[in-house]
Amino acid sequence: MRWRLDLGYDGTDFAGWAAQPGLRTVQGELEEWIPKVLRLDRTVALVCAGRTDAGVHARGQVAHLDLGFDELTDPAMLHRRLARVLCDDVVVRRISPAPPGFHARFGAIWRRYVYRLWDGPTGTDPLLRRQVTRLRSPVDLDAVNRAAESLLGLNDFASFCKRREGSTTIRTLLECRADRVSGGPLDGVIEVTVRADAFCHSMVRTVVGALAEVGLRRRDAGWLTEVAAARERRSGVPVLPAHGLTLEEVGYPADEDLPARVAEARSVRSLPSAGRERTGEG
Amino acid sequence: MRWRLDLGYDGTDFAGWAAQPGLRTVQGELEEWIPKVLRLDRTVALVCAGRTDAGVHARGQVAHLDLGFDELTDPAMLHRRLARVLCDDVVVRRISPAPPGFHARFGAIWRRYVYRLWDGPTGTDPLLRRQVTRLRSPVDLDAVNRAAESLLGLNDFASFCKRREGSTTIRTLLECRADRVSGGPLDGVIEVTVRADAFCHSMVRTVVGALAEVGLRRRDAGWLTEVAAARERRSGVPVLPAHGLTLEEVGYPADEDLPARVAEARSVRSLPSAGRERTGEG
Repeated sequence: MRWRLDLGYDGTDFAGWAAQPGLRTVQGELEEWIPKVLRLDRTVALVCAGRTDAGVHARGQVAHLDLGFDELTDPAMLHRRLARVLCDDVVVRRISPAPPGFHARFGAIWRRYVYRLWDGPTGTDPLLRRQVTRLRSPVDLDAVNRAAESLLGLNDFASFCKRREGSTTIRTLLECRADRVSGGPLDGVIEVTVRADAFCHSMVRTVVGALAEVGLRRRDAGWLTEVAAARERRSGVPVLPAHGLTLEEVGYPADEDLPARVAEARSVRSLPSAGRERTGEG
Repeated sequence: MRWRLDLGYDGTDFAGWAAQPGLRTVQGELEEWIPKVLRLDRTVALVCAGRTDAGVHARGQVAHLDLGFDELTDPAMLHRRLARVLCDDVVVRRISPAPPGFHARFGAIWRRYVYRLWDGPTGTDPLLRRQVTRLRSPVDLDAVNRAAESLLGLNDFASFCKRREGSTTIRTLLECRADRVSGGPLDGVIEVTVRADAFCHSMVRTVVGALAEVGLRRRDAGWLTEVAAARERRSGVPVLPAHGLTLEEVGYPADEDLPARVAEARSVRSLPSAGRERTGEG
């Protein structure tokens, strides 16, 4: 029996999603507590949609977990017990039976991240300081949005990724735009929305870093085109800090299209040449 | 020469605004650092618009400070130096010459606070947990808003205040309403806006606590009317925790009306019978 978990976390005090010995990670916490509260004498394994890096937050992380029919009968009970034991920087929003063929990673058709920037003349709002990165000069959003458009579509994002031996860096960027929030507690904050079928390692933070260079008028759109065409990482492209980044949402196809989607993603991503690949932002 | 400071802070790690020996407070930090960065060999005194309690946040706190003409000539320099020395849970947004007759406390004509609540079926978004208070059942906003209307206007708020010997508890409540945020990082959060000419101690947290009782259908509007009419604190009225509360904005009259306003507020508030009175939420 496969279960879908919808999760949120403040990444500040986590060494990312992926379990690592001796480090506090989201996967590590959940894989430690789930068998305990269910009183299983075996380990469990969670698979997530976006393996976020240390310091990256999530509001819409999705994971799945396989349990025997006798191991979990009442998801509300698991939900309640996890709420009691987990620290308040991680929350399980929902535990629901996964539709047939569901796979948190391979079933996802897109991931939506938002990178938040503050370019006001004074320091960041202290209440937002763990989620917003400060830039020291005003950003020209029109310039950012014009440049962002040139990145849309099916492209090789090698210039914006940490290379991994044998991994593909070809992705479909579905959405990339910057908006300034007006009103409310985030008044004046720039939200850069980046949505793609999948991401390679550190891709969002590097894409937004490059766009910020254009928005700050340190570089022009021609430079961005050149960077993108180079298909290799260059030293002039800043990787923005993790704390400004939040995984907001993961998109899945309609239930009936899930099995086909999973089969397709699996075949592409499990090519021997594709190696072990990240679908999180990293 | 009087200077106006616009400030924001995350109240989590402060024992409130007001300086207290041995405790970390916002006033204390500023009054410690300002003479240091200006190399004055005297102490300075800040006066603020809303003396927030321990744990209460501010996005729009206003304070003033008197300095000799020779002590500060370049406010940008003071601003820069404070930004360097202050921790990132407090930010000075602006330092500007105060208009003639300005007084951060007595010049203010209203203070606007927002209390944020989360009544969803799962835990609070971890990214908002320091600013939002969780309620365990869904809130009926219509019921809250109907009840809130009955509190508007010039009233004795003694039922919602910690009594202080000789202090008046008569206040003009200018705005009191609850809205549910739709979209963005605060999606689904309830914002209760409370705006009044001034507040007595713990008033916002008690008013919102009473309104929440009505919204949770534990009490009806008749109960609220009774509570308000009692003009004394009752045990059934919960005082909500400090961390959900933020001082968002302070209103001042047009510059030319400032001296008259200050004179008026001073005469009312300095009546011997009025004692030492808080204008913050406390």
